[in-house]
Amino acid sequence: MKTRVLSGLIMLPLLIIIILRGWVLFAGCFALSLLAVYEFFRGFKELDIKPSYPIAVGSTILLYLMGMLCFVGTSFSTSMFSSAFVFMLWAFITVFACLLYLFKIEERKLEDAMVTLVGIFYVVFFCYHLALLGMDEFLGLTVWLVVITAFGTDICAYFAGVTMGKHKLCPVISPKKTWEGAIGGILGSMILCLIFGLIFMKHAIVICLIVGFLGSIISMFGDLTASIFKRKMGIKDYGNLIPGHGGILDRFDSILFTAPLVYYVVNILSTIGVTGAWN
Amino acid sequence: MKTRVLSGLIMLPLLIIIILRGWVLFAGCFALSLLAVYEFFRGFKELDIKPSYPIAVGSTILLYLMGMLCFVGTSFSTSMFSSAFVFMLWAFITVFACLLYLFKIEERKLEDAMVTLVGIFYVVFFCYHLALLGMDEFLGLTVWLVVITAFGTDICAYFAGVTMGKHKLCPVISPKKTWEGAIGGILGSMILCLIFGLIFMKHAIVICLIVGFLGSIISMFGDLTASIFKRKMGIKDYGNLIPGHGGILDRFDSILFTAPLVYYVVNILSTIGVTGAWN
Repeated sequence: MKTRVLSGLIMLPLLIIIILRGWVLFAGCFALSLLAVYEFFRGFKELDIKPSYPIAVGSTILLYLMGMLCFVGTSFSTSMFSSAFVFMLWAFITVFACLLYLFKIEERKLEDAMVTLVGIFYVVFFCYHLALLGMDEFLGLTVWLVVITAFGTDICAYFAGVTMGKHKLCPVISPKKTWEGAIGGILGSMILCLIFGLIFMKHAIVICLIVGFLGSIISMFGDLTASIFKRKMGIKDYGNLIPGHGGILDRFDSILFTAPLVYYVVNILSTIGVTGAWN
Repeated sequence: MKTRVLSGLIMLPLLIIIILRGWVLFAGCFALSLLAVYEFFRGFKELDIKPSYPIAVGSTILLYLMGMLCFVGTSFSTSMFSSAFVFMLWAFITVFACLLYLFKIEERKLEDAMVTLVGIFYVVFFCYHLALLGMDEFLGLTVWLVVITAFGTDICAYFAGVTMGKHKLCPVISPKKTWEGAIGGILGSMILCLIFGLIFMKHAIVICLIVGFLGSIISMFGDLTASIFKRKMGIKDYGNLIPGHGGILDRFDSILFTAPLVYYVVNILSTIGVTGAWN
């Protein structure tokens, strides 16, 4: 518990970035991606898999450059760089680069290229949704929902699990998690999102509740996915950037999943008119 | 040589599909993707890797459904389904499904999920560009360039290599390939694209030449990539669908790479105005 509270305090700089959002968050997500994908790749050392960090860096720069050009303001660049065409081009270049990596056939294993690709899509691409949300004029405030669902679920599930936990959720992947904790996490996330909505997004309470529910579930999937990777790698934590609190990726494993969820759910619900106005 | 000529004849039904293009080619690419990704996954049997075919099928259906909705004609669906948003959503769902596949942690290896993801992006996503090109009102004729660069390079490189080949290109990956063959393949592809341009696309000769050059190079990368995968899998051919001529993926390994190349090069060059008119 002490660890949880402390790690909460260490997250304070993150809060400032989230409050400022826009380009500050955009740059923060870029830096976070580069650090997190580095930790992810390092985890494969034990398995003797050597993914390509330079390809991941190049692909990340390209993705964020596209994002920048999309938001610089001219209507041409906005429509061009928000089109499927440019995003598909990015995906093609990324996959192509990973396949080229195999051409030194005697030095490199299939796994080296495959982990490079998985790392870019799982870490860099997932995190990119947070940067996009933060740049949105109307939906920018919803970056808070990404953080609230991820950390809210984590903290509420922890307390619910400690106080009431009896039935194991998935003992093979993560032995300490219980069904009571999971339900507590979901309820906690929904309540926190509701409170946030009542204060800041009065016209979008329904969206806040839906996001609180779905975000909480996917947040746990994010947590478990990271656990699976670490189990397969044979490591306990991705790193020790924050002494005693693991690496960047240990802290942000849920954010990686709640960011795309919030991005798609909020965009779809507001497009089909579940809410009319954002404040 | 007999094999090459015969396999050329067996490609005749393909010609009809390419001539009709539009929805026929769209459906053809869909079927081709499902067959090719099946062959790709089966190749990993020897390595005791078990990718998920149902995830690949689901992801392929979703991708082509998006494409269909993009082309049904209403301006809303066209703009919606050609936006980065929907394509990103597809990529997110695909990656998420592959990660979920790992949740049966004791049954499944990391490689099972990773090969699923790589197969979808390498086979299904790459092939999808051919379907998109065929649906384009103005650029539809360029599907021929995909075929000409891929098969033209293959045939010209073969004859140039047989008659003049001396210096090995990459003996470790593919021992028979020579530099003379590669250069012959590039020149042959450029000449064939030029002839095609002179007959059918008089206003876009420059584009035909550029595509002939770049398409030929990437076509060889496509061929070598397939060789690398097969070498790593320890198999000679992906299948025996066409007796004596290997599987679908053996025939289309170059198309997978020339399709995206033609799609991006032609779209970019015609957007920046390298040519004004298509006929």
